[in-house]
Amino acid sequence: MSKYSLFKEIEEELHQVEKELNSLVRHENLVLQEASAHLLKAGGKRLRPAFVLMAGKFQMEPVEDLIPLAVALELIHMASLVHDDVIDCASLRRGVPTVRALWGNSVSLHTGDYLFAQALILVARYNDPRILRIMADVSVKMCEGEIQQLISVFDLEQTVKDYLNRIRRKTALLISTSCTLGAIASGAPETVVRALTRYGYYLGMAFQITDDLLDFTSNEKELGKAVGSDLGQGIITLPVIYTLRREKEKGSCYLQGLLRHLEQGENKDAVLQEALRLVVSSGSLEEAQGLAGRYIEKAKRELERLPAVPARSTLENIADFVNRRRF
Amino acid sequence: MSKYSLFKEIEEELHQVEKELNSLVRHENLVLQEASAHLLKAGGKRLRPAFVLMAGKFQMEPVEDLIPLAVALELIHMASLVHDDVIDCASLRRGVPTVRALWGNSVSLHTGDYLFAQALILVARYNDPRILRIMADVSVKMCEGEIQQLISVFDLEQTVKDYLNRIRRKTALLISTSCTLGAIASGAPETVVRALTRYGYYLGMAFQITDDLLDFTSNEKELGKAVGSDLGQGIITLPVIYTLRREKEKGSCYLQGLLRHLEQGENKDAVLQEALRLVVSSGSLEEAQGLAGRYIEKAKRELERLPAVPARSTLENIADFVNRRRF
Repeated sequence: MSKYSLFKEIEEELHQVEKELNSLVRHENLVLQEASAHLLKAGGKRLRPAFVLMAGKFQMEPVEDLIPLAVALELIHMASLVHDDVIDCASLRRGVPTVRALWGNSVSLHTGDYLFAQALILVARYNDPRILRIMADVSVKMCEGEIQQLISVFDLEQTVKDYLNRIRRKTALLISTSCTLGAIASGAPETVVRALTRYGYYLGMAFQITDDLLDFTSNEKELGKAVGSDLGQGIITLPVIYTLRREKEKGSCYLQGLLRHLEQGENKDAVLQEALRLVVSSGSLEEAQGLAGRYIEKAKRELERLPAVPARSTLENIADFVNRRRF
Repeated sequence: MSKYSLFKEIEEELHQVEKELNSLVRHENLVLQEASAHLLKAGGKRLRPAFVLMAGKFQMEPVEDLIPLAVALELIHMASLVHDDVIDCASLRRGVPTVRALWGNSVSLHTGDYLFAQALILVARYNDPRILRIMADVSVKMCEGEIQQLISVFDLEQTVKDYLNRIRRKTALLISTSCTLGAIASGAPETVVRALTRYGYYLGMAFQITDDLLDFTSNEKELGKAVGSDLGQGIITLPVIYTLRREKEKGSCYLQGLLRHLEQGENKDAVLQEALRLVVSSGSLEEAQGLAGRYIEKAKRELERLPAVPARSTLENIADFVNRRRF
């Protein structure tokens, strides 16, 4: 099942989301317009808008009133991506040059701020202070997650718990919030809001763990960026933490040594390849996949609390899709 | 009259604003805490909170309910300052090293995002969608102003109108918005809201023109950054535009030539000193001061539409103070 057939029942609304995103980036300031349009064309799965719309379907039909909210969530996601690019010194995202690589740090920074402020204008339309509060909270936590990632670069002492804490704020909370806000804006009862919030959280955790696996298993063409680029930048993901833990239990410190070399920048390419090989052959990818699978199970269990409308099967299918994700 | 005696009637509330700002930067993440605290200690005039509180006094007494809003406006201002520092590669602000100089671009970026998101949490408390909409609008326009400044660096063709458009978005709108939101949150009638909005706008324009004059007239100790640092970075302010215009009328192009050299970075210090000397001796500073004075007059005229409460005299005094500003 492809991502397109997954979202078939909200196909029209997602098309509308795309149109709104396109019209928002039309701007008298050419640099701002080009930078935003470039970002938009780079694509993306529009997962967050899809979750807003799907979550709304438990209470509301059709869900067109949720389109501005869906657009707002994608804008916040896009804003965080441009800002991430400033930090990571990334030059490719999804296979195309980043805004930073093309226009420099200053334009990236303001493009991100601009997209975020545009999101707020859309949120203001809903006249619901709960929506703003939830969005502001998630924004604070996303910043904290990003700073956490910055300061934990090449920190080989970090635990599984540290990692989970980091991806919760970096990814899971915004996906969870997309579900929460879709449900709230549709007027769903509190029990539905809570189950969807937790579904989004568990699914988001599984999504990021799987995403982090791709740094080891994918290839540059599919991934749109160099394989091993996270590890190369010192971002320590779950498979690495697992491998380091296995090593420690055996009293070895080979990977640890490699990562120290990588940090020093000595013979970088060869060291990175050896580190990747070591992680792949250690069985840690399967272990991480196992944890992702358990989060998927938890996500699906939350769905059981919800009425058996068609949207519920779709969310179930999305969960299965994330579990089998290989791109 | 010092800035302290100006704000005597809201002294206690401003003290409370300072306390809230301090408690907001206490954070479990040490880098985030240190960067924000550093920013806070660098000081500032807390003008925007003062305008929120003063604007509220036309309808509400005491104005302690406006304190979170006043804090929010200062947080947005602080966020824009940290983000500006990323762009300008500034290493000093108000005489102390910038967050960027101490922690790097990445931390500055996320500290700014974090402060902005904290502001939103405070705004959400007011349950008033108008407040959010106005804040989102001003944020979009501030980004546009910043990008405009970026792309107009060393653009010697820019007109007085271009300059005014730029400082409107860069400075005047946030000061104007501080007045608007203080008035709205206090429940003031529409006529009062409008007069205060315009007062803030005219005062903000005068404030930025005067601020730009300081780049020519102040000294490093008073200014807290190097004299001529705007011009050195290619930021073309009103006195430069006036001087270029005077030159053009006389068929000369000496300053134009100097600025071209400055852009190329040839013999930078000497060229900058000569350019500064030229602007100062041209009479353009007085001309710019004249325009600032006319904005001050317009600001004061708006006050005449307001009830003659003590806050009105204070706002009048603030206008006179900005007009005489020499630091």
